[in-house]
Amino acid sequence: MNRIARLRERLEEPLLVTNLVNVRYLCGFDSSNAALLVEQDRVRLFTDFRYIDAARAVEDVDLVQTKRAIIGELAETLKGRIGFETALPFEQYRTLASGGLDVVPRSGLVEALRAVKDESELALLRRACAITDLTYERLLDVRFIGRRERDVAWDLARLFHEEGAESFAFEFIVGSGPTGSRPHARAGDRKIGTGELVVIDAGCTVGGYSSDYTRTFSTGPLGEREREAYEVVALAQDAALGGIRAGLSGVDADRLARAIVDESEFEGLMGHGLGHGLGLEVHEAPKLSTESTDVLEAGNVVTVEPGVYIAGEFGIRIEDDVVVKEDGIENLSGFRKDLVEVG
Amino acid sequence: MNRIARLRERLEEPLLVTNLVNVRYLCGFDSSNAALLVEQDRVRLFTDFRYIDAARAVEDVDLVQTKRAIIGELAETLKGRIGFETALPFEQYRTLASGGLDVVPRSGLVEALRAVKDESELALLRRACAITDLTYERLLDVRFIGRRERDVAWDLARLFHEEGAESFAFEFIVGSGPTGSRPHARAGDRKIGTGELVVIDAGCTVGGYSSDYTRTFSTGPLGEREREAYEVVALAQDAALGGIRAGLSGVDADRLARAIVDESEFEGLMGHGLGHGLGLEVHEAPKLSTESTDVLEAGNVVTVEPGVYIAGEFGIRIEDDVVVKEDGIENLSGFRKDLVEVG
Repeated sequence: MNRIARLRERLEEPLLVTNLVNVRYLCGFDSSNAALLVEQDRVRLFTDFRYIDAARAVEDVDLVQTKRAIIGELAETLKGRIGFETALPFEQYRTLASGGLDVVPRSGLVEALRAVKDESELALLRRACAITDLTYERLLDVRFIGRRERDVAWDLARLFHEEGAESFAFEFIVGSGPTGSRPHARAGDRKIGTGELVVIDAGCTVGGYSSDYTRTFSTGPLGEREREAYEVVALAQDAALGGIRAGLSGVDADRLARAIVDESEFEGLMGHGLGHGLGLEVHEAPKLSTESTDVLEAGNVVTVEPGVYIAGEFGIRIEDDVVVKEDGIENLSGFRKDLVEVG
Repeated sequence: MNRIARLRERLEEPLLVTNLVNVRYLCGFDSSNAALLVEQDRVRLFTDFRYIDAARAVEDVDLVQTKRAIIGELAETLKGRIGFETALPFEQYRTLASGGLDVVPRSGLVEALRAVKDESELALLRRACAITDLTYERLLDVRFIGRRERDVAWDLARLFHEEGAESFAFEFIVGSGPTGSRPHARAGDRKIGTGELVVIDAGCTVGGYSSDYTRTFSTGPLGEREREAYEVVALAQDAALGGIRAGLSGVDADRLARAIVDESEFEGLMGHGLGHGLGLEVHEAPKLSTESTDVLEAGNVVTVEPGVYIAGEFGIRIEDDVVVKEDGIENLSGFRKDLVEVG
C-alpha cells in the first residue's frame, strides 16, 4: 500500500501537509515551498513558479501553481474543514484560520508513517552507512595532530565525496580535547594536540536519507580516566545494542545504556539521550531518551549513541545506526569501535 | 547601542525569543536548542546540557539549564505576560499557552533589527563576498563540458574551501541547459553539453554571514534567443542596481528590473522576485518582490537577481549582493557579468 493510502486510513478530515519533508515523503517532491492537501478522493500539490516545472513530474496529484505565500492563497480559496500539521508556524496558522476554513490541529500523522521504513528507504540508509564506513576507514590515514579541527572536518567532507556521498547530513563535529566535552561543538580553529580524545560526528546523504556516526579517536597515550571512560561508553553501547528490540519504550532503551554509565564513576555524565530516529531528517521519530514517549517498532531506524562528557576536559561518544527488528537489531554501522589511535 | 538595548525600545512586554538565528543575533549564542527571555531589567538564556558549557561564555545573561523540551519547562515555570515570536510552531505555541503565562504574538521585532546591518556585520559580508569573487574567478578554469552538474558543484565547494570559506551558504545550484530553467534546481546527474547556458548559484559563510551569487556561463556558441535573453537580464540588473536606494519600496525595486524583462520578448518570464535580504540567513528581510510589504533602509544588504526562465529550454540569472545606502548602493560582488564561455 502506498504512503498516501496509509495516511488516508489515519485521517478524520482532509490534511494539509506543510512540512516540506513530509511533502517529499508522500509524493517525492522536494522543494523549499510547497503544500499537499490530501483528501480521500484526490491529492492537490501547491507550489510556486520556481518549482512548477519540476512538479509536473509528480504522479497522481493535481498540480496547482500559487504565489509564494501559499498559505495566504489557500486561506482565500479553500473552504470546509481541514487538518493542519502542528509544526506550522503560529503566524501561518493564524493566516490559514483567517479565511473560510475550519482548521483542526493534527500532530505527527505523517511522522508516524515515516518512523517505520520500507525496503526502498532501508536500501538508501544501508548505502549511506556503507559510504560512511568507507569514509571513516580512510579517515584513519588522515593527519590529526597539529592541524585545526576544521581542517580534519574538510578532509572528512572530501572523503565522503570521493566515496560517493550525494551530500552531507549535517555540519560535522570534530571535537578535540576539551572541545569534545561539548556534545554539539562544531569543528573550530583549535589545533589538535597529542594524547587527546577527538570526537568525530559525521554523516552523509544518499537519495535524501542520512547516516549519522560518531567515533572517538585518540591521538596518542591517554590518561587512565579517559581510557576508563571510553570503556564505560563502549559497554553502555553494547548493552543498548544487545537490548533494543520492537516493543521496548524509548525510555527503557535509553536506560539500557544510562544504567551502565550511572553505575560507573561517570554517574550523571551521559548528558543527552541515547538516540533518535534517522531518515529524511537526521532527527526524527522515535526518540530514545529519558523524555521520550515513544515505543519502538520494527522498521524504525535509530541512532545508538551513549556518551560521557567532562566539562573542560574531554568527551566520548560512540554512535551506530541500527534498524529495529522484532527480536533485536540490524546494525548498519560496520566501522570498528575499539579505541583507535590516529596520528 | 547594543542589540538587546535596541530590542528593548520596541517591546511592550518581555519577549521570548525562540528563533535560534535571533538568539544568535542578540547574544552571540549559536545552538540547535535555546531560547532567550528579554525583559527590561534582565535577559535569561535557556538551553540544555549539550550546550550549557558553551553557553557559559555568553555575557550579560542569566544562564538557565533546562531539559530538551524548553518550551514545556518554561510553560510550567514562568508567570505573567510575555510576547512570543510568531515563527513559533503552533504545537509549541499551544504548549507555551497551556500554563500560567499570558502570551501575546509578536512578529518581526528582531528580524527588523537584523535587516539593518552594523559595521561588524558588513565586514563579515564583505569578506564572504570577497571569497566568492575569488572562487568564481577560479571556477572559470574548471572543466564543465562532459561532466555532471554535481561534479562542478563539488569543484565549487573545494574552491570555496581553499579560498577560506568557513562553510557553504546553501546547497549549490548548477543548472545546465533545460535544468537551468528551474530557478531552484539542484546540481544533478545531468552531463553538461556544449553550447549550453549553465546557471551557477552559490555562496559561502564567514562568521555566520552568507554571500549569495549567481552567474550564468555559456559552454560554447549559443542560439540568438539565449544571447538576447542574457542581454535582457543584464540590462534588468543594471536598471535595478542603478535605481535601488533607501526609501524605495520592495515592490518598486522589483519593478525596476521586471519592467525591462516585461518590455522585452521575454515578458512574464522573470518568475521570481528581484531579491531578498542577506545576513545570518540566506533569505531574510527585506523582500524585493511583487508581494513585498517592505521599504528599503540604509544598511539593508540584499540580493539583486533578475532572471529569465524558459521551461524545458534554458534559464538565466545574474545575482549580486549589495548594501543599500541613502543615495544608492555599494555592490559587494566584484566578479564579471559579461557572458563568459567556459570549457
